[in-house]
Amino acid sequence: MLSYTPPLKDMRFVLERVLDAPEALAGMPAYAEVDADLMRQVCEEAGRFAAGVLFPLNAAGDREGCRYERGAVRTPAGYADAYRQFVDAGWPALACAPEHGGQGLPQVLNCVLNEMTSAANHGWSMYPGLAHGAYACLARYGSAALKERYLPKIVSGEWLATMCLTEAQAGSDLGLLRTRATPIGDAADGAYAITGGKIFISGGEQDMSANIVHLVLARLPDAPPGSKGVSLFLVPKWLPDGARNAVHCTGIEHKMGIRGSATCAMEFEGATGWLVGEPHRGLAAMFVMMNAARLQVGAQGLGIAETAWQNAQAYALERVQSKAAGRPESRRGEAADPIAMHAPVQRLLMTQRAWVEGGRMLAYWTALALDGAERHPDRAVRDELHGQVELITPVVKAMLTAQGYEGASQALQVFGGHGYISETGIEQYVRDARVTMIYEGTNEIQAVDLLLRKVLADGGARLEGLLARVLSTAEAECDGEDDGAHGALAPHARALCALVRRLRGAVRAIARAAEGQAALPHRVAPETLRLVGHCALAWLWLRAARAAIEAREEDPAFHDAKRATASYYFTYVLPEVEQLFGVVDGCLNQAPEDAVCFSV
Amino acid sequence: MLSYTPPLKDMRFVLERVLDAPEALAGMPAYAEVDADLMRQVCEEAGRFAAGVLFPLNAAGDREGCRYERGAVRTPAGYADAYRQFVDAGWPALACAPEHGGQGLPQVLNCVLNEMTSAANHGWSMYPGLAHGAYACLARYGSAALKERYLPKIVSGEWLATMCLTEAQAGSDLGLLRTRATPIGDAADGAYAITGGKIFISGGEQDMSANIVHLVLARLPDAPPGSKGVSLFLVPKWLPDGARNAVHCTGIEHKMGIRGSATCAMEFEGATGWLVGEPHRGLAAMFVMMNAARLQVGAQGLGIAETAWQNAQAYALERVQSKAAGRPESRRGEAADPIAMHAPVQRLLMTQRAWVEGGRMLAYWTALALDGAERHPDRAVRDELHGQVELITPVVKAMLTAQGYEGASQALQVFGGHGYISETGIEQYVRDARVTMIYEGTNEIQAVDLLLRKVLADGGARLEGLLARVLSTAEAECDGEDDGAHGALAPHARALCALVRRLRGAVRAIARAAEGQAALPHRVAPETLRLVGHCALAWLWLRAARAAIEAREEDPAFHDAKRATASYYFTYVLPEVEQLFGVVDGCLNQAPEDAVCFSV
Repeated sequence: MLSYTPPLKDMRFVLERVLDAPEALAGMPAYAEVDADLMRQVCEEAGRFAAGVLFPLNAAGDREGCRYERGAVRTPAGYADAYRQFVDAGWPALACAPEHGGQGLPQVLNCVLNEMTSAANHGWSMYPGLAHGAYACLARYGSAALKERYLPKIVSGEWLATMCLTEAQAGSDLGLLRTRATPIGDAADGAYAITGGKIFISGGEQDMSANIVHLVLARLPDAPPGSKGVSLFLVPKWLPDGARNAVHCTGIEHKMGIRGSATCAMEFEGATGWLVGEPHRGLAAMFVMMNAARLQVGAQGLGIAETAWQNAQAYALERVQSKAAGRPESRRGEAADPIAMHAPVQRLLMTQRAWVEGGRMLAYWTALALDGAERHPDRAVRDELHGQVELITPVVKAMLTAQGYEGASQALQVFGGHGYISETGIEQYVRDARVTMIYEGTNEIQAVDLLLRKVLADGGARLEGLLARVLSTAEAECDGEDDGAHGALAPHARALCALVRRLRGAVRAIARAAEGQAALPHRVAPETLRLVGHCALAWLWLRAARAAIEAREEDPAFHDAKRATASYYFTYVLPEVEQLFGVVDGCLNQAPEDAVCFSV
Repeated sequence: MLSYTPPLKDMRFVLERVLDAPEALAGMPAYAEVDADLMRQVCEEAGRFAAGVLFPLNAAGDREGCRYERGAVRTPAGYADAYRQFVDAGWPALACAPEHGGQGLPQVLNCVLNEMTSAANHGWSMYPGLAHGAYACLARYGSAALKERYLPKIVSGEWLATMCLTEAQAGSDLGLLRTRATPIGDAADGAYAITGGKIFISGGEQDMSANIVHLVLARLPDAPPGSKGVSLFLVPKWLPDGARNAVHCTGIEHKMGIRGSATCAMEFEGATGWLVGEPHRGLAAMFVMMNAARLQVGAQGLGIAETAWQNAQAYALERVQSKAAGRPESRRGEAADPIAMHAPVQRLLMTQRAWVEGGRMLAYWTALALDGAERHPDRAVRDELHGQVELITPVVKAMLTAQGYEGASQALQVFGGHGYISETGIEQYVRDARVTMIYEGTNEIQAVDLLLRKVLADGGARLEGLLARVLSTAEAECDGEDDGAHGALAPHARALCALVRRLRGAVRAIARAAEGQAALPHRVAPETLRLVGHCALAWLWLRAARAAIEAREEDPAFHDAKRATASYYFTYVLPEVEQLFGVVDGCLNQAPEDAVCFSV
């Protein structure tokens, strides 16, 4: 049987020691009342809910799955009740603005909540998962009437939301979508009739909320072709007058994982909807929702990796097999050792740990930057942080989901043959995690988004903004003294300085080469994304190691382990950059006619 | 719907052009009659069987799974019939010796067969999967009476075999096993009563063969503790007198994948068995079976990766989304392009392809070396090749299974959201593939086996044997002229020479460091395994590129694609060695007190 313990201690370390979140938030009038105590309290409560209410439903929900019957979807036993508790506790309102009935707490706390709900029950977490994005989208683009009617119910959680984008022929390319919206002639409030089929709609139908608010991409009659002719509509399951709208679920998918989450095919048959934002500008409005979703998907990867690692660690300390090389003298009489003492198992566990703890710093740093981008009193700071969030969002999405899957698989490996057995539970994490690399934009699309739209598009300005921060920390540590504990920071800092310089050179070379070969940056985008990610991770690990040195005496065991994990990251994880640069260099040096072919 | 096309053209290229298999076999009297025509014929027939009989049962077998009822196991619909056809066609006898009723064909053809049965239906292939290993083990260690009674039925396939090793407390560490064997006082033929429980026994019970021959590890009453007190016994389900033996299946596991394969818990309750080999030397006898199984598991990884890639490639050519960067002028009027034209998708496909085609060369090269080790007339050649097979077996097992899983996951990624849907079928390949990294010795155990028992144990002699072959090819290509087609071979050859020299240096450094730190080689074993693997793969790719140049005119499209794939391997795949050396160097430079910790 698996378990889940909210990693409160590490969360506090990251928020308070590494990111100085309370201090950063104190500089924003909107969060003047958010101090360290309040943050701890929210983390503890969220952890209690995730571990106590959601986690016990996780394995059973996977086994039971959802049931579809004549348009209705029955979610697994306990899901609806857990959602009721979630609403009663006010969690949906956490990071919504007080003027809409929200609690007005920062995004960084919402990120903590997302990590924990996903860690405890990824399938369940899909239902409330899109509510915050829908809230943010409506709050920004909705008409006064729509906001008045829908926002309070979404904020309270009484109503849930979906994102209706994908059609059979339009997945990554939303410009190909065919659903149409026709003005309803006699409607006084400017309503439209929406007609078309959507697929892969998470929570398109369910038995958890009284109403479902669909945000639907469709084409107006005069729409230009492609993505510039796509508009966004709000289409509720139940209309304001209490009538059932003409939108129905026609079936649910059988999937590799997140089987507790209903993935619905939806048919809109002249359903009544209202425009959100301007005509033909639907993608811009949808991207407010999409960006929130991408950060959240990153937090899903983080949460999955955390639970998988916790359980692998516990199993490795318990499972006894073979004598470990270099076993301590004290175990001389034992026939075998816990597998946690075997070096290759330690490698698996420490790799998971370095990614989980590093990923947490990256996710929370991004969420805190988002808070600043939204709420900092200084406009220049807001703009700068907004650029940083734009830059790092695809990195968070792609790297943390890749690691959610990889970490779950590494955890399964620690369990050995038992890991492959369904009853053990860990294989569910691998199956669940796999989808995060695909939805809300595949990880390949994240890579292209980063390199083409975020790095090359502004001549590297946003990237330089990040690298300048990184270098400033790294250079300050380059000449640091070793305090003799767990290895010096200076070699790590020098490695990071070198990494930043090499990355700058590589990006410049890619930009130059792109002038002659349009496909080249697309070809090395996956490597570039991971290089940017390692710059950020190495930076945060350096800060974590420094924070661990400074706070050591408060809890020597915890902080020494933190420094050891930082050292592990630099020694065993960061060398991935050598491979990445090797690929980029090889690709740059390749004659164009030797470039990747897809023929035969 | 997925499909499977036996890759006969590539098999012929590897066997005839890269490995010169017909010529190598012609030098062995046992295979004097095996010429290129016969080999092609066997490949074609095996392909027809795999694609025509096994593949259609694959998805349905996964959905249906096995059923357990009061000691009996019902395999999925069609499995038993397919096995009857397999037996009727004589496939079990393929690589068995004529003196035992076998066809006397080489191991390399058995490897081709294994690749294709796994590519078509991994779950089904588990049932006959252990028969050849059991045959090899019994042929070498069985008494005359046991051989006479059991070998012909195993060779013909009438009876299937199992490998009963694992117990709840004894997985990777067989020294911990508790099943006991007590001499039966009045048995004239030296029988033993076997008592104990075994788990994870593939095909421990089934409805496909008339009898099941269990090869069981157990302890004699006077056995010393640990792995030196383990003996091997043959325990048939049905005794020679027609009585049912006291061995029963008490349940089957629900697993992540290979759901058509019955993974049984077995209870031996004083079951009658006979000693195979010497008392307390059971592990040595079992390892004959285990080594055969490890090569076969490598071939499973290869087969899975092949089918996954084929289907991803087909889907990518068909699925149209977005305009590709650098799209050809001819597609100007189209709203979108096949995703196979998008660079990041090409990367996914070409990475799969480079591993599939490279893995095929590695697997077949190893199987051909095994033929030489068994059948070459020159004793010195046999010994040398035996050493090469010992060295490379863990590499084949670990690298090809890691890539089977990774390749299946990459194929799923190409399918996008559709890949996550069960009906698409590709997610089954990911689930099925996952177990190959665990069974027959986890990939971590393969890495330790390679570095500790195969490399460091003989002072690097067997490794030098491989590296000398590699260098001889590489040095000859270093000064080669470019023929102007698809990039020169000389830069690749120089990269390979440099790789060999760095690997030699790294192994020497590890050997030195191991003197002071016993755990150190265990820590870098995973990297060392992949470095040795890349030496072998790069060597084979260089040979493949050369062969493609020489044979170009026979089929320009095929051979140009082969050279492009070789070039892809060197440019995009081989840079992994930079990461691997980075980790090894970092680990060697680390102070022992900073080494991986497992605490907290």
